[in-house]
Amino acid sequence: MYKKFPLPSWVYDTVIYEIFPDRFFVGMGKSVEDKRELYEKRGGEIKKWGIIPRRSENNDHVKVFYGGDLWGIAEKIDYLKDLGVNAIYLTPIFLASSNHKYDTIDYFKVDPQFGGMPALKKLIKTAHKYGIKIILDGVFNHVGRDHVLFKKALKGEKRYRNMFVFYENHYRGWWGTSSLPELHLEEVEVKEYITKIVRKYLEIGIDGWRLDCGQDLGPEMNRFINAKVKEFSSEKYLVSELWTYPSGWDMVDGIMNYHFATTVIDYLLGKNLNAGYYLEKVFNETSNIFGCWNMLDSHDTERLATVLKDKFLRKAAILLQFTYPGVPVVYYGTEIGLEGGSDPECRKTMEWDESKWDKDLRDFYKRLISLKKSEPALRYGTFKLLSNEPLIFTRETPMVLDQIVVYVNKDEEREVSVTIPNNRLLSGTKFVDLLSNYETHIIGGTLRLKLPAKSFGILKVENRVVKGYDQYKRIS
Amino acid sequence: MYKKFPLPSWVYDTVIYEIFPDRFFVGMGKSVEDKRELYEKRGGEIKKWGIIPRRSENNDHVKVFYGGDLWGIAEKIDYLKDLGVNAIYLTPIFLASSNHKYDTIDYFKVDPQFGGMPALKKLIKTAHKYGIKIILDGVFNHVGRDHVLFKKALKGEKRYRNMFVFYENHYRGWWGTSSLPELHLEEVEVKEYITKIVRKYLEIGIDGWRLDCGQDLGPEMNRFINAKVKEFSSEKYLVSELWTYPSGWDMVDGIMNYHFATTVIDYLLGKNLNAGYYLEKVFNETSNIFGCWNMLDSHDTERLATVLKDKFLRKAAILLQFTYPGVPVVYYGTEIGLEGGSDPECRKTMEWDESKWDKDLRDFYKRLISLKKSEPALRYGTFKLLSNEPLIFTRETPMVLDQIVVYVNKDEEREVSVTIPNNRLLSGTKFVDLLSNYETHIIGGTLRLKLPAKSFGILKVENRVVKGYDQYKRIS
Repeated sequence: MYKKFPLPSWVYDTVIYEIFPDRFFVGMGKSVEDKRELYEKRGGEIKKWGIIPRRSENNDHVKVFYGGDLWGIAEKIDYLKDLGVNAIYLTPIFLASSNHKYDTIDYFKVDPQFGGMPALKKLIKTAHKYGIKIILDGVFNHVGRDHVLFKKALKGEKRYRNMFVFYENHYRGWWGTSSLPELHLEEVEVKEYITKIVRKYLEIGIDGWRLDCGQDLGPEMNRFINAKVKEFSSEKYLVSELWTYPSGWDMVDGIMNYHFATTVIDYLLGKNLNAGYYLEKVFNETSNIFGCWNMLDSHDTERLATVLKDKFLRKAAILLQFTYPGVPVVYYGTEIGLEGGSDPECRKTMEWDESKWDKDLRDFYKRLISLKKSEPALRYGTFKLLSNEPLIFTRETPMVLDQIVVYVNKDEEREVSVTIPNNRLLSGTKFVDLLSNYETHIIGGTLRLKLPAKSFGILKVENRVVKGYDQYKRIS
Repeated sequence: MYKKFPLPSWVYDTVIYEIFPDRFFVGMGKSVEDKRELYEKRGGEIKKWGIIPRRSENNDHVKVFYGGDLWGIAEKIDYLKDLGVNAIYLTPIFLASSNHKYDTIDYFKVDPQFGGMPALKKLIKTAHKYGIKIILDGVFNHVGRDHVLFKKALKGEKRYRNMFVFYENHYRGWWGTSSLPELHLEEVEVKEYITKIVRKYLEIGIDGWRLDCGQDLGPEMNRFINAKVKEFSSEKYLVSELWTYPSGWDMVDGIMNYHFATTVIDYLLGKNLNAGYYLEKVFNETSNIFGCWNMLDSHDTERLATVLKDKFLRKAAILLQFTYPGVPVVYYGTEIGLEGGSDPECRKTMEWDESKWDKDLRDFYKRLISLKKSEPALRYGTFKLLSNEPLIFTRETPMVLDQIVVYVNKDEEREVSVTIPNNRLLSGTKFVDLLSNYETHIIGGTLRLKLPAKSFGILKVENRVVKGYDQYKRIS
């Protein structure tokens, strides 16, 4: 019943960098002090860059601001360019009360705390100049209690009452929260309203939308919004926030694949004994897997460095993030080793003092980002599991010389033989590790691997021409 | 994303008889005159059996009653048994203002005009005694304006307001009709309310539900109600009213396949030149085709005898209705040649004077009903098109001797050869027409048919054992 739109062509080569705008960088040479009024006049509190945000019982932490804005992100494009990412996903930027801005007041205004519309336009222009796409966060399941139309509805303006759901003594809020009134999505006026918002920012030049609360929106609303995005241009991208088993949500280009995160993290922590099987199953059953986001952390989870303190395990997770089909998402700061517990600690300010960076980790990211963008098998190759433990899989394109084999051995040194079910891989063909230059070769369809303790690798076929003799001269 | 429940096993062998209760038979030896008060005290007008109902501009025709009731249907079970049908689909029977009762007042009451709950229980008991199933009409997209809870909501009882959708100066009605307020299906109270209704009548003993306005309910609500039905028992049946291309609505057991009706009727009227291709395409794409209803007419269309006056064409349509995969639905009276234009004319009273029946037509139905219930290939065989024009197809089960070939030649006499792609059909095997005893045989995988002008047939494989020699002794 659901027909799939084609995935935008650029998505296959994309690595996303997720930014929580208040916490990335303050632009225009300012500090949060210089912007004090912007926050305090709206009941906010300012904090100095670097102080760790803490949860407060009365939820006051959502009113704590560090001054980050879209000007700042535009000024840091060179940092992102150097890292190699080619898309930015911004958590919400529209006028809203909190620092996270999931409580929209007005979708047609970019929050002045973030620099307003001029800053968004500047960011889009700068990013595009560097070949970086911009993806915005569309929060359409609910609004904030100060939302312009909700306030009118609350006052009794009947024209707007049906955009929400009012009961005898309350209205319907997300998870029952009165601060987040739910939109009445089945109403034609709400559908038209959302359509206008979606189109407006596409017209301004953004490259895609991430839909908040995709589960609440339900299949049909996801489908509706996707159709509106594709109607504008089939090269625009729509991803939905879903924490379910990934398959079947193919009415959008992809989902935030948190199943990937839980599977990989639990595998590396020794708690998931079937991760390889699950990863293969999801690949086989998820028709839009190449558009899904390979998550390891985000503004909604603990940071990766906090979950996987062991550096080897953490790098193994990142390796899998970049070698499993889908779009890797790097949460700002995770590439330099930033730690952080649950919200709001995971939303702390970006570290700009390079002496505090984990440079080895950042270089590791740079190498993987580069491979993800250049290796055909990592861009669009299929996934086949070769071994569940140690975890070994292959990525395969129609061209045999693209073939890649990825392994993670989290235990002792061991020798393993795996079958690669590709009848065009000729005997004697070398596989070279793109990270370490370790070499091996395939014989009789079998790859014999000697895996050091706590190791991982990305092996790629390498064809060697000897004095004009090319084994692959008639096979490609 | 949608997993299918198994089809109730009895559905494969089922032929449904659709009844509009006010117009079938008045039970308890009464006439509408005897029941006058039941109608007049509720603003209805009574009419004598046989008078053709006519549309009135002010919609008064929905308040014209002929006295038919569930007692009457129970008394006529012998008629249905003799005809051979084994399920009855009743248009709505719950307390409602109109004669059609699609404007429910109270789902928990069977309308006293139809005999109330005792008559329903009697009908179920009688029908089941004769092996006849009962399917009720569930109108859950909307209620009538006199609905018990809607009236409370309208009066301002806030508890019930959210079961409907109120606007500034109006409420949401089906197609904008104020007489049919739409239920607010996303509200948990409405879902619970519908669940209670669905379960109540399953508990009383009905065998399935037909969902009115399946398109308005949307995929998820169809899925929800189906789950509630299956939760009660996997042998209970749910069919949804849908007028779309049939495929993809497989979250229910089947849909009312009006695409079948339009395709077949237009084909026979010479307006659809690709009917065979379309019928095959629908079969291949519709995973729940065996649960779908093969419609030719209903309370919502002109009667078949009015659409296809030519008796040969009409019989050809009926032949296709019984030989295409799915559940044939006979609209009361169509089996005796009743005519009738659009609603309300198609809802005229059943003719009980046998001298006015088209007995030849009724015998034709009896023969087809018997074949549909007994021939394995007609019950669960796959469909393969052999020729688009003349229309020839085969129904095939895993057993080669079940094989059936159906043809319709609506033009001049002609000879045609068709390939039957079944490598277990041995050369020389006879095919005998189950309707006429015409014989032919297959050679080299090819069936040569001599089709008389304006003819149709249901050819079945017949294996002839000659002096102990059985060609099929090692092939089954």
